[in-house]
Amino acid sequence: MEKLPSLEQLIESFARLPGVGRRSAERMAYAVLEMKDEDVQRFYEALKSSKENISKCPRCGYYKEGNACPICDDHERETDKVFVVSSFKDALAIENSNTYHGLYHILFGSLSASKGVYPEDLNIEPLLNRIKEGNIKEVILGTNPTIDGETTATYVASLLKDYDINITRLGYGLSIGSSLEYSDPLTLEKALEGRKKL
Amino acid sequence: MEKLPSLEQLIESFARLPGVGRRSAERMAYAVLEMKDEDVQRFYEALKSSKENISKCPRCGYYKEGNACPICDDHERETDKVFVVSSFKDALAIENSNTYHGLYHILFGSLSASKGVYPEDLNIEPLLNRIKEGNIKEVILGTNPTIDGETTATYVASLLKDYDINITRLGYGLSIGSSLEYSDPLTLEKALEGRKKL
Repeated sequence: MEKLPSLEQLIESFARLPGVGRRSAERMAYAVLEMKDEDVQRFYEALKSSKENISKCPRCGYYKEGNACPICDDHERETDKVFVVSSFKDALAIENSNTYHGLYHILFGSLSASKGVYPEDLNIEPLLNRIKEGNIKEVILGTNPTIDGETTATYVASLLKDYDINITRLGYGLSIGSSLEYSDPLTLEKALEGRKKL
Repeated sequence: MEKLPSLEQLIESFARLPGVGRRSAERMAYAVLEMKDEDVQRFYEALKSSKENISKCPRCGYYKEGNACPICDDHERETDKVFVVSSFKDALAIENSNTYHGLYHILFGSLSASKGVYPEDLNIEPLLNRIKEGNIKEVILGTNPTIDGETTATYVASLLKDYDINITRLGYGLSIGSSLEYSDPLTLEKALEGRKKL
């Protein structure tokens, strides 16, 4: 294969993706060689423009394409609620469940003593600034139902306790040890309905 | 997701790859968003140059990058043997096994009445032209040991029978590392037929 350097590089790039081993990466690369020109071009342009045009909203951390954040700049949303999650994928799972129409705040991780993730490593300070602006009436803590997620929720709740807002935690439906990202919409809906005041 | 068209397109492109469902495609696309700029750049440049710079050798059908075919233009190979296979991946498997150092000829498919693949759909005519040049002493038929593969081998052999060359077929038998207990009866029969004196 060293005689086809572009193909070798393509295999390496595929192999960097989650859940893709060397063997699968090879199959994908050969499939690209067999693809129609326009499909490869669309693929290439999507990769390029995803990286160039998609960025994190500086306010909430959700991904946006272009200038407007699909969440913060959507004026039909309930702007007095903030759903705090660990990752974009978590926020997306909630969006796709169609049960929530407020704002988000993405922390980009969970507190973890073992992994050395501390409060200053997370997107917490900007959340406090949003609360201080005074429009938020409810903060829903939607970190994962795991030890790290619970720790994060408890920590964020402790920072927010002096503000005049409702702090709730997702409750019913989520099983301990599972991942929010892979929860089905109904479970997410039940969890949202069953949120509890902390 | 319709608010992030580049990402949606990227997910669709990943989902076109073999063995990648919608869910895996989403994970891959989000992983791209989290990748370093230089890794994404290397990825899309590999995609672009694989498609632009890699082409099939007009003589043997093997993939080549640039002008020289890694097989036909490698002057250290035995140029009097041609290994006939159905696909590039088959030829690659043989290359990687390091057991063969002759030439290849890729048919790009197998004859199949049920799938409507006929001799004129395969890369057979150019093989005959190579034989007519007179340098080839042996043609090894390496199509798959399936009904379609056997049909193809038999058909190609019938076309070559008037030329003064050896026509051989890959040997059948037990795969190394396989278990006799789980081998199918036909394989066992072929293994018995092909037994060798020790």
